[in-house]
This record gives sequence, structure tokens and C-alpha cells, in this order.
Amino acid sequence: MSKGSLIVFSGPSGCGKGTVLKEFFASGGEAFYSVSATTRAPRPGEEDGVQYYFLTREAFEEKLSNDEILEHTTYCGNYYGTPRGPVYERLERGENVILEIEVEGAFQIREKCPEAVLVFVMPPSLSELRSRLVGRHTEDEETINRRMEAARREVQMASQYDYIIVNDVLEEAVEELKTILRAESLRTSNRKKFIDEVLQYDA
Amino acid sequence: MSKGSLIVFSGPSGCGKGTVLKEFFASGGEAFYSVSATTRAPRPGEEDGVQYYFLTREAFEEKLSNDEILEHTTYCGNYYGTPRGPVYERLERGENVILEIEVEGAFQIREKCPEAVLVFVMPPSLSELRSRLVGRHTEDEETINRRMEAARREVQMASQYDYIIVNDVLEEAVEELKTILRAESLRTSNRKKFIDEVLQYDA
Repeated sequence: MSKGSLIVFSGPSGCGKGTVLKEFFASGGEAFYSVSATTRAPRPGEEDGVQYYFLTREAFEEKLSNDEILEHTTYCGNYYGTPRGPVYERLERGENVILEIEVEGAFQIREKCPEAVLVFVMPPSLSELRSRLVGRHTEDEETINRRMEAARREVQMASQYDYIIVNDVLEEAVEELKTILRAESLRTSNRKKFIDEVLQYDA
Repeated sequence: MSKGSLIVFSGPSGCGKGTVLKEFFASGGEAFYSVSATTRAPRPGEEDGVQYYFLTREAFEEKLSNDEILEHTTYCGNYYGTPRGPVYERLERGENVILEIEVEGAFQIREKCPEAVLVFVMPPSLSELRSRLVGRHTEDEETINRRMEAARREVQMASQYDYIIVNDVLEEAVEELKTILRAESLRTSNRKKFIDEVLQYDA
């Protein structure tokens, strides 16, 4: 049996990484989607352990000091982070785990878990990204310009990721993610147990 | 466009790596199979550039001293090695290149070409490997025992390869090789040009 892979999934706002993941799971992709923890209050309809694990500030900080948070950030005065426990449980059972997080968190993960596989989702071009953001009709021009600047910074960081997926045709992007997961399961680091088993037999 | 991947393909005698490659190419796998150079005389029917590039000892040694041989070994007093030129030409055109070589040569390649991807083909077990060797009816027991010892040493080196393919069901092994090639084409190191192109557009 292969060990599971820890996949970090990032990409600029508007690149469609959420859609890629949704389609990945809908089309039978096998992985555990890691739920983040946060100290912000749940909104109506949100359930603990579904959208987020909702923690008090004290509980979050205790986890932080016990090294139980793999990466975290603060936003509008609240903590957001990835709890270690559920991630490692799944990996040890041989399941793949996907973390959908920002570039900064991705590098925190790489530091704590050097075996993590960093996948960056790119738009086919920055002009296509702008069209997608404009097409949403949810942000004014200033916000879009800010997002575009952020996207440019993120794309510059992409060169430090392990893999690049281009989200031009959705099905292809999903297939690429699946290919990466399959290839990672063939990595020697995930197959050490098998090598040992072969060697144990005294042929 | 992606840069091509340099795939080093090894495995113990009898693991079926030749069959995997034959089926890989027969089923549309896209890669250039690197032909080795040797100083041994061509046998009847062998053609220069097909089974081997046949070189004089002087020519081979000149290539060696000009760093035009990526890896080499000697066997029965003759040189065998991988000429650099054809390999790099193909890689630069974006083609994948497969080198079918021994473990020792694989590590020479890794030293010269750190971007090389080392794939090891494993038998499902050493007892299965022994059955396959016995089933060939071409070697006596002593030879088989020697091959089994060599296989054990090679499997121990497998942990230093990047990927492990188990050749239990041939079609699965071929599919695994194709998956590795596809995933490698998504590696950031092969897509730097694309990142640059995205960043050049002033969106």
C-alpha cells in the first residue's frame, strides 16, 4: 500500500481552483479535503467541521503553541489555519489530503512537511484572469486591479511550486490533478514499505 | 510548451522492463528511446544507430574526454555508454527521452543531469522474479542464483530512484509509466517558460 500524498492547492483568485476541486471530487477523485479552523464566528447555516472548525481564540492559540496547526494566517483579526490531526490521520491511512490554501500558507506547509506536493493553478493568461474577474460582476474596478496585482505576485511565486496546472479547459485541469496524484502514489518515498516487503522474501 | 523529460529506466534482469517499454511504444507512448554506443563489433544483422552506435575505441574515448558520454560502463573489455548529443537534441525539442540502463549508469546520469527522472521497475516479488527466470529455460541454476543476488542488490538501490513501477499486470505497468511522463510534463521546472509568458502580459 502507498502512503497518501499531502497536496497543497493554490492559485490566484479567479483562476477557478474551487471549480477544479469540485469537479475533481464529482468525477471520482479520491482525496480528503482538509477543513480549516478559524476563530471567526459561524455564519447562519455554517456547521462546525463542515465549512470550518470553529474554535475560540484560546483554543486556537493553545493548538498553535502545541504545534497542532500546520499553517495559519490572520485576516480581519481572526485566525485561520490547518489543524494537523485530521490531515495526518488520513495520510497515515494511505489517503490523499488536499489543502486549498494561499501561497504564504503553502510555504509554511513545505517547511513543516517537506513531503508535501505543491500544486499551483494558473489562468491561461492574466488577461483571461481579468476577464473572469470582470465577468463575475461582484467587484468594482479598484478591487479588480488589486486582485490583479495580487495575482501577479502569486504567479511569480508559482515557480517555487512543484507542479503547474493551467485551468484553460476544466476537464483537462481536473485530469492533470488526477495524474499528479497517481504519479505521486508511485513515488519511491510512498513505496518504501513495498521495497522492504520484496526484500524480506529470501528468494 | 513543456520541456521534455529525461527518464532513466532500470530494473533487475527478468522484471520485464523491455516488455513494458515495447508495450509503451506500441500503445502510443511518446518518447525517444536512446540508443547506446559501444565499441564491440556489430553482430550479423545489427545496424549502426539501430541496436547501437558502433564506435572504435579511439572514437569512444575521445567522446569520453569531451564529456559527450552521459554514462558508461565496460563489459567484456568493451565500452557501452549513452551519447549526449541525441539525448539533448530531443529534450530541447520538447520530447521525452528514455534511457534503459543499469543502476550504476542511472546514478551517473543523475550526477550529470540532476533533472533526470529515475524510474525503477520491480517484480511483484523476488520469488516471482525467480519463477520468471526459471521459466525462460535459458539459464542454469547457478546463473539464476547469481541473477537473483544481483536483483536483490538492485532492489536495495531502488529506494534511491524517484518512482517505483511494479510489473505485475503489464498494462498497469505501462499506464504507470505514461502517468509519470504526463505528471513530469506538469512539473514547474518544465513550465518556467509558460510562467514567464503569463507574467509578460501587462494585465
